[in-house]
Amino acid sequence: MSIGEFELIDRYFRRPAADPGVVLGVGDDAALLAPTPGHELVLAVDMMVEGRHFLPGADAEGLGHKVLAVNLSDMAAMGARPRWALLAGALPDSDEAWLAAFSRGLFALADAHGVALVGGDTTRGPRNLCVTIAGEVPAGTAIRRSGALPGDDVWVSGSIGDAMLALAALQGRTAMSPAALAPLRARLERPQPRVALGIALRGVAGAMLDVSDGLTGDLGHILEASGVGASVDLARIPCASELRMRLATGERGLALSCLLAGGDDYELCFAARAAMRERVEAAGSAAGVPVTRIGSIAPREAGLTVLDEQGRALAVLPRAFDHFA
Amino acid sequence: MSIGEFELIDRYFRRPAADPGVVLGVGDDAALLAPTPGHELVLAVDMMVEGRHFLPGADAEGLGHKVLAVNLSDMAAMGARPRWALLAGALPDSDEAWLAAFSRGLFALADAHGVALVGGDTTRGPRNLCVTIAGEVPAGTAIRRSGALPGDDVWVSGSIGDAMLALAALQGRTAMSPAALAPLRARLERPQPRVALGIALRGVAGAMLDVSDGLTGDLGHILEASGVGASVDLARIPCASELRMRLATGERGLALSCLLAGGDDYELCFAARAAMRERVEAAGSAAGVPVTRIGSIAPREAGLTVLDEQGRALAVLPRAFDHFA
Repeated sequence: MSIGEFELIDRYFRRPAADPGVVLGVGDDAALLAPTPGHELVLAVDMMVEGRHFLPGADAEGLGHKVLAVNLSDMAAMGARPRWALLAGALPDSDEAWLAAFSRGLFALADAHGVALVGGDTTRGPRNLCVTIAGEVPAGTAIRRSGALPGDDVWVSGSIGDAMLALAALQGRTAMSPAALAPLRARLERPQPRVALGIALRGVAGAMLDVSDGLTGDLGHILEASGVGASVDLARIPCASELRMRLATGERGLALSCLLAGGDDYELCFAARAAMRERVEAAGSAAGVPVTRIGSIAPREAGLTVLDEQGRALAVLPRAFDHFA
Repeated sequence: MSIGEFELIDRYFRRPAADPGVVLGVGDDAALLAPTPGHELVLAVDMMVEGRHFLPGADAEGLGHKVLAVNLSDMAAMGARPRWALLAGALPDSDEAWLAAFSRGLFALADAHGVALVGGDTTRGPRNLCVTIAGEVPAGTAIRRSGALPGDDVWVSGSIGDAMLALAALQGRTAMSPAALAPLRARLERPQPRVALGIALRGVAGAMLDVSDGLTGDLGHILEASGVGASVDLARIPCASELRMRLATGERGLALSCLLAGGDDYELCFAARAAMRERVEAAGSAAGVPVTRIGSIAPREAGLTVLDEQGRALAVLPRAFDHFA
């Protein structure tokens, strides 16, 4: 059951890199990488803590997928191509079955996106998984949060609220058949980062981020960075039928929370000029991800308004998640 | 006492970057950085866990220093110039006094090395601090572990074993006056990464790493990567007088452990051709760090030998630290 630190790295995390940009991968004091001329480097890090982001006993293969997925989603949100990852992990033990499954999940997603694991650090401690991702974008083409203008359309990819609704069902806060739960649960446990869509939206979207903490909270970041307001139509937010039907029932509160404050879907939310509608649709088609126009950017004074099915502004917006609130 | 996650980042970790290479720093989905043409990117990550790498209640300012120092030391070990850092942290609470002190220690060292903090992630959880460092080196000039040749000299910077001796004294495993302990404790709590020396050794050292897990264990990594052996003279390993005197007493076992298996000094250990001796000395002088020749590289069959004061091989070498052993 117990293997040494270096053997652990060798056995589960060191693989030959197919990427010619990897000059030197796992096994030295640092990795050496060859940046693409004319590109900017894009760096992000995400930390996932047992008991906070996942439960003790969570499926290790799914965790390996998710800890990388959330980082790839940050690259997608910039319109960047992810290239290289570093994994730092604290583990309570060196359980080889856990390591094998975790490594399998991580590398399956890495391979799907052409990402090479080039370094890391392992230590003993309360389970904590921290992935750093390095990507690239042609200089000047990254999509920031600060480029939204009044009159822009507001778009989201995929569907919103699936992950939080799955979590609510798993926690017994709403009743759902196993067949209905399965696809939502897959969205919670194996989010698909919208990397191809992000890249396709270079030169098309004016401002973008990924929805990790909840739609209104995250859209709020775009509004703040861009100095604008926005209006969103609740009825246009794309969501699963299981969520849509709950909007019209006694579970409307839960449904609103999922739609407006549910994180973990890792969809993209972006603003684009109205003249870009065809190009946005084309980007979605090319990437194989639905894109839906849910509202529009307004002057700053308008703040953020969510209109209900009758066109009335919601008086109170569910709050986005804050780790220290 | 309790502030929100975004306010926490704003207040303690977001500062204007003086580095024109920082196109976009803290505050978006990822940082945007302008790599230097003709250079390779150098990436490393280190994770420090409460109860493992530091004790509960450890001085927060010192922690801020150390968590970055160990990463800068990885850059030094490659001969790279550190440029950009990402901080991911799990914290049990949002204690502002702790955050202010931690941030002070981190930024003081970052400023001293011209490193910009460009991104991060904060979450609640058992205290865990994870820094990713990105550096640069002119393409082809990084100093790897794999370039040592039989006949090379083996060198170390600074002095070895200080940090472990300080730890032993703090834990009551050896008696020492407060005046004698103070400089050793500073070495344990505020290690000075040998960045300038690492850069000065480009084109001079054939193989290099930093001593983080203990001299023989870390030198062993050079030997393995280079396919060579080595012989080291115990009497030539530079160390504090408090350590040297213990070699001749009933505390010889502790002293040997500190010298050969004590980590946490973050000195550089490197191999260089004998013809490079003057250039090695010049690099040490230029960087203001003593460099000492402690042995020589041998053919692989020789393995690793440590010779005692009488020139006899030590029968047993103290073991390097392994988080999962």
